[in-house]
Amino acid sequence: MYSYSYLFEFTSLALQKMGFTEDNAAQCARVFLAAERRGISTHGVIRLADYYKLWEAGRINVTPDIRVVHETPGTALMDGDGTIGMLPAIMAMGVAISKARTVGTGWVAVRNSSNFGIAGYYAMMALEHDMIGFACTNASPLVAPTFSAVPMLGTNPMAMAIPAGQQPPFVADFATTPVTRGKFTIAAKKGEKIAFGYAQDVAGKPTDDPTAIERGGSMLPLGGDREHGSHKGYCLGAMVDILAAVLSGANFGPFVPPMMSYLPLLDQKSGEGWGHFFGAMRVDAFMPVGEFKTRMDRWIETMRASRPAEGHDRVLIPGDPEREYEQRTEREGITLLPQVVADMEMIARKSGMKFEALP
Amino acid sequence: MYSYSYLFEFTSLALQKMGFTEDNAAQCARVFLAAERRGISTHGVIRLADYYKLWEAGRINVTPDIRVVHETPGTALMDGDGTIGMLPAIMAMGVAISKARTVGTGWVAVRNSSNFGIAGYYAMMALEHDMIGFACTNASPLVAPTFSAVPMLGTNPMAMAIPAGQQPPFVADFATTPVTRGKFTIAAKKGEKIAFGYAQDVAGKPTDDPTAIERGGSMLPLGGDREHGSHKGYCLGAMVDILAAVLSGANFGPFVPPMMSYLPLLDQKSGEGWGHFFGAMRVDAFMPVGEFKTRMDRWIETMRASRPAEGHDRVLIPGDPEREYEQRTEREGITLLPQVVADMEMIARKSGMKFEALP
Repeated sequence: MYSYSYLFEFTSLALQKMGFTEDNAAQCARVFLAAERRGISTHGVIRLADYYKLWEAGRINVTPDIRVVHETPGTALMDGDGTIGMLPAIMAMGVAISKARTVGTGWVAVRNSSNFGIAGYYAMMALEHDMIGFACTNASPLVAPTFSAVPMLGTNPMAMAIPAGQQPPFVADFATTPVTRGKFTIAAKKGEKIAFGYAQDVAGKPTDDPTAIERGGSMLPLGGDREHGSHKGYCLGAMVDILAAVLSGANFGPFVPPMMSYLPLLDQKSGEGWGHFFGAMRVDAFMPVGEFKTRMDRWIETMRASRPAEGHDRVLIPGDPEREYEQRTEREGITLLPQVVADMEMIARKSGMKFEALP
Repeated sequence: MYSYSYLFEFTSLALQKMGFTEDNAAQCARVFLAAERRGISTHGVIRLADYYKLWEAGRINVTPDIRVVHETPGTALMDGDGTIGMLPAIMAMGVAISKARTVGTGWVAVRNSSNFGIAGYYAMMALEHDMIGFACTNASPLVAPTFSAVPMLGTNPMAMAIPAGQQPPFVADFATTPVTRGKFTIAAKKGEKIAFGYAQDVAGKPTDDPTAIERGGSMLPLGGDREHGSHKGYCLGAMVDILAAVLSGANFGPFVPPMMSYLPLLDQKSGEGWGHFFGAMRVDAFMPVGEFKTRMDRWIETMRASRPAEGHDRVLIPGDPEREYEQRTEREGITLLPQVVADMEMIARKSGMKFEALP
C-alpha cells in the first residue's frame, strides 16, 4: 500500500532524474497519480517505466520547447517537441481555456507529442472555470476498421467533463473500443478466454483468444461487429484520429509510433509523434452559469432516479465510479501490482533513489 | 419510382400548403430529399406525414420567428420558436459557419425545435467552406442508460463531415445505438427476432423480441451490454443530450416531447421543444487547407488500402455507402414504400394536390 503523496514524490523525483524541470515533473506526476486515484491504473505509474525506458533509448525529449505554431482567436496548433504527452496536453488545455474566455470556446490541436495518460484529466481542467472540457488523443494502432483485418487505429479515447451545481460533475472518459487491451493481458495470464466482440484473428474472424493481437489479430471498435454497430465505433475512432493527428500534423492511423522502447520506430511517417485535440466551451457563452448548473443537477438526478434493471441497484452517471474509487484511495491508499513495484524498484535503483511500501 | 425533382416539388408544395413560406418549404424539402438520396429513408419523406399530422394537431409553428437569444464571437444560443427542425438547424449551422470565419470555430445550441431529419446534412454544410462540420440532436426517449430499465434518452445521433482533396469527404452520421428503431419494426412485420444487444424488456433483461419497446422495454446504447461497453454508448447519448438540450434550454432526457401527433404531450417539461448542437471548425484555423486535404487524402487511401477481413472485399470510409446510394438514386430514381406512398396520397388529397409515380 502506498500513499498518494509518497507516489507523487517518487514519480516527480524520477522524472527530475530523467532531466525534466521540477515544475514539469510535478505536472506530469499529477496526471500519473490522478489515474491511480481514479482507478484507471492502466494509465497510472505503470507507465512510468515505459517513459523511463524510452528516455534511456533517447526517444523522449526532456527539455522540450513546446510552442504555439499557428493560432486564431479561438484555435491553436501546438508542437510538443517530442516530449512526454502530459506537458503539451496541460499547456494546450490551458490555451483552449484562455481562448474560450475571450471568444466563447477554444480548440487546440497538438502534434509531436506522445501518450498523455488519462484524457479525463485535461477535460476536467475546464470545470473550475465553469467550462465544458473535451480531450482526445490518438494512439498506436491496435484496432481494425469494420471489414478490415489489420490494426489501423489506436483505441483513441475521448473525454468530456461538464460542470453541475450540487451534484458532482459529469465526467465521461472512454476508449472507442469495447474494453481496454489490459483485459486481454489479464485473461491471458489467467488462462481464460475473452468475450467475443473484443478481438478478431489475423484473417479478421471473430475470436475469444486473448493473445489474438500477438498473433497478428486486432481489437474491434466499440460495437464489436457490424451487426452491433462496430462501424459507429470505427467512426468515433476515426474522428479522434483525424482531429488529433491529421489536423495537427502528427502521425495518424497505422503510422503512430510505439510507446514501448523495445519496439522499433516505424519505417514510414505521416507526421510528427502522437496527436491530441482539446476543447473548452464557456457555459455562459450559451446560458447563465447558475441556470445551467440547476439544469445539469436536474439531468443527473433524473437519470439517477430511473428504475434500475433487474440485478442492479442503481443507475450511474459518467464519472461516478472514478469518483467513488478516488474516495476509497484517499482513505485506504493506492495498491500497486507486483510488476509495477518491480518497475519502480528498477527506476529507483538506476536513479539512486529508494522505493518502499508504507509500513 | 420517383424522380428527385418530383419528390422535391411535392414535398416543397405540401409544406407551403401547411403555411411555410416558399423559401422555408424548399429548405426543408432539400433535407427530406437528401435523406432519400443518401439511402436513409427512415428520415426521408416518410416523416412528412408526421409533420403534417402534427400541424393538423396545432403542434408545429409554420410562421416561426427563429432568433439568436444570446451570443459571443464564437458561440450562439438560438430559439427555434416551435417549428419544424430543419429551419432552425440550417440557420444555426449558418451562424456557426459565419462565426468560424471570424474566430476559427463556431458553436451553436438550439432549443424549442423538433426533429431535424439527418444530422449529416448540417455537418456537410461546412464542407464547401473548407470547414469541419458537426451536428447532433436529442430525440424522444427510447434508450435506457446502462443498468437502467427505463427509456431515458433518445437515439441521439451525431454527425461529423471533414473535407478531403481528391478523395470524397469523410462523413460520419450515426445514432448512438447499435441500430435504428426501424430494424425493430421490419423484424416485427416479418415475424422475425432481433439480435440480442439491441433491446431489453420491461425488467431490463436482454431480449430478442422486436416488440420489446411497445411492451415497456427499451433500446440499448451502442455497445449493447456492459461487458461490451454499453456504458460508452450511454456516455455518447448523454453528451449529445446535454450539449443539445441542457445547454440550450430544450427538454432533455425523458422530457423530450413525442413527434407523433397521436401521442399526448408529456405532463412535465424541462425546457422548450427539442434541442440541437452544431459546430464548424475552419481547417485553416489549424493548418493550411491544401496541406490538410493532402493529409486527409492519404488518411482515406491508407484505410481503404488495408487488407479486408475474410468474407469482405473492401474497407469503407464513413460516407462511402451513402455516396454510392446517392449515385444510384440519381441514375435510377427514388423508391418509396407502399405505406409512404399512401401517406403522400393522403397529404395530396387533403391539400388539393396530386401524387403520382413516374410512368
